Amino acid sequence: MKEPRVAIVGATGMVGQEMRQILEQREFPLADLKLLASERSRGRTLEFRGETLPVQVLDRGSFDGIDLSLFSAGTGISKEFSPLAVKAGAVVIDNSNAFRMDPGVPLVVPEVNPGEALKNKGVISNPNCSTIQMVVVLNPLHKEFDIQRVVVSTYQSVSGTGKEAVEELMQQVRAAEAGEAPVAEVYPHQIAYNCLPHIDVFLDNGYCREEQKMIDETRKIMGEPDLPITATAVRVPVLVGHGESVNVQFAKPVEPESARAILAKAPGVEVVDDPANNLYPLAIDCQGNDPSYVGRIRKDFSAPNALNLWIVSDNLRKGAALNAVQIAELLLG
Amino acid sequence: MKEPRVAIVGATGMVGQEMRQILEQREFPLADLKLLASERSRGRTLEFRGETLPVQVLDRGSFDGIDLSLFSAGTGISKEFSPLAVKAGAVVIDNSNAFRMDPGVPLVVPEVNPGEALKNKGVISNPNCSTIQMVVVLNPLHKEFDIQRVVVSTYQSVSGTGKEAVEELMQQVRAAEAGEAPVAEVYPHQIAYNCLPHIDVFLDNGYCREEQKMIDETRKIMGEPDLPITATAVRVPVLVGHGESVNVQFAKPVEPESARAILAKAPGVEVVDDPANNLYPLAIDCQGNDPSYVGRIRKDFSAPNALNLWIVSDNLRKGAALNAVQIAELLLG
Repeated sequence: MKEPRVAIVGATGMVGQEMRQILEQREFPLADLKLLASERSRGRTLEFRGETLPVQVLDRGSFDGIDLSLFSAGTGISKEFSPLAVKAGAVVIDNSNAFRMDPGVPLVVPEVNPGEALKNKGVISNPNCSTIQMVVVLNPLHKEFDIQRVVVSTYQSVSGTGKEAVEELMQQVRAAEAGEAPVAEVYPHQIAYNCLPHIDVFLDNGYCREEQKMIDETRKIMGEPDLPITATAVRVPVLVGHGESVNVQFAKPVEPESARAILAKAPGVEVVDDPANNLYPLAIDCQGNDPSYVGRIRKDFSAPNALNLWIVSDNLRKGAALNAVQIAELLLG
Repeated sequence: MKEPRVAIVGATGMVGQEMRQILEQREFPLADLKLLASERSRGRTLEFRGETLPVQVLDRGSFDGIDLSLFSAGTGISKEFSPLAVKAGAVVIDNSNAFRMDPGVPLVVPEVNPGEALKNKGVISNPNCSTIQMVVVLNPLHKEFDIQRVVVSTYQSVSGTGKEAVEELMQQVRAAEAGEAPVAEVYPHQIAYNCLPHIDVFLDNGYCREEQKMIDETRKIMGEPDLPITATAVRVPVLVGHGESVNVQFAKPVEPESARAILAKAPGVEVVDDPANNLYPLAIDCQGNDPSYVGRIRKDFSAPNALNLWIVSDNLRKGAALNAVQIAELLLG
């Protein structure tokens, strides 16, 4: 694929907007960009490389002449329209949960399993945000020290839910300031000044789907179908940037210093780990940046060969739009 | 000790205020209450049982005639003044970090090790907030299933730092709203819309002191000096109420249902665990209440006999003032 004609489905959403900007920033060699969204966005225009592009309403004919389609408009839209895009000859890079665990669909983080992208049969899935930022850090450590078990607790920002959740947090903050009762519509409870141990729907095993995604997707991406991993997903009143407290047990002896040295050379990772100078990854610092930041790397004395890590990344970029564009880059001939 | 004459040191601070209110709420049988604070609070008055009491400036003579003194004015004040209180014949219940790991000083959570309180030589330490709410949940599970390892990540509110941190968060939120740069003075970085993986100072082993406290104090309170436990402490933009994501491995087989049944009967614990109805412990719900709330109780499939728990409690009450008053109640004859 050279100079593909590209479509973004969900072009007016938070991730869709990031996709457009990242295509521009990375000078992605596209012949043409088509911006697709729902009826609600009819008549809107968006800028791309100095040009004003119309937002077009997604329909069954939208993919005629498209070579590459980036989907970020929810699972329902992906299920309905990605087969049409593939039929029209486009490769689909899908940011939704629709096909991630489909054995025939590659689930790709370019720093971890780039070779899978080329095995696609029309659709490549972009993993969950929390999973991506974690596996770019875990994979280089796994190669060196052989991971035996992962326990992760997340601190996830509201932008992972979407624009309406960002607006809800801001409105609740203003309501609290005015002494009014905060209204919760997007989330089941107030998110301002609160933490919700609940992301996506609850499953029969007591996990919420976000937690199950982190377990299943990490195993698939790292090619370790039985990797012992458990997750607790928590929404926090942060706008952009997901944090993760990650406890990792390894088969081989590991020191924080050697882990730091390996991560310092790992693609897509930046080590920020100088607690004496109050330097550690922060959500407010990661916004608009590409890496998965890791710090607070220290020995866990409660188990042999174990480390604690603190990982933060921009959930809209590496957690979504950037990873999708990086997958697209793998497809360029 | 019957109808003791009680002093609160740090009576105008967040915890000191809670102590006064809890003494009133629980109808603590005191003969007299003396409110002590620093020079800054000179001339202030506070209400207690319908009476207006003067705040008196703490000095070397403050403890004459006092039987019981509740300290919550920081480690420096505790180190300087608690020996004077003991010399004057008072028992000190100290909320600071000054003596907690002193082998001669009991560290007490009344639901866990009440007998230790009576072994005091004048000073009883009140544990760290994050530790207290965790051990009241862990101890009953430990008795039944024998804990082998604990991995905890915290979501701690700014009131744990004090009034000035609450004010800083609110000011930063207002600054963000006004489009101004937030000023950080209490914390090294902005706390509004951010998470700081940093509570208390950093130690040589890479842990911050809050994390080390949780490890050391949990072992001392539970009487398990070698209990394998590791902690990651994170400050979140919440006003009151600490959350904890706790992963626990046991020696004996355990099912979520049996853990729930044991916790439902455990003193100081309330199970809130009905995810299908969006019910789980929340910081905004725990404020002003006594229990350590636990929910999201589910099997961790990554290890044998392991559970994940989500624990939330009011850090000013059970995490500080309530636990101190409960210790005082153990001393009543």
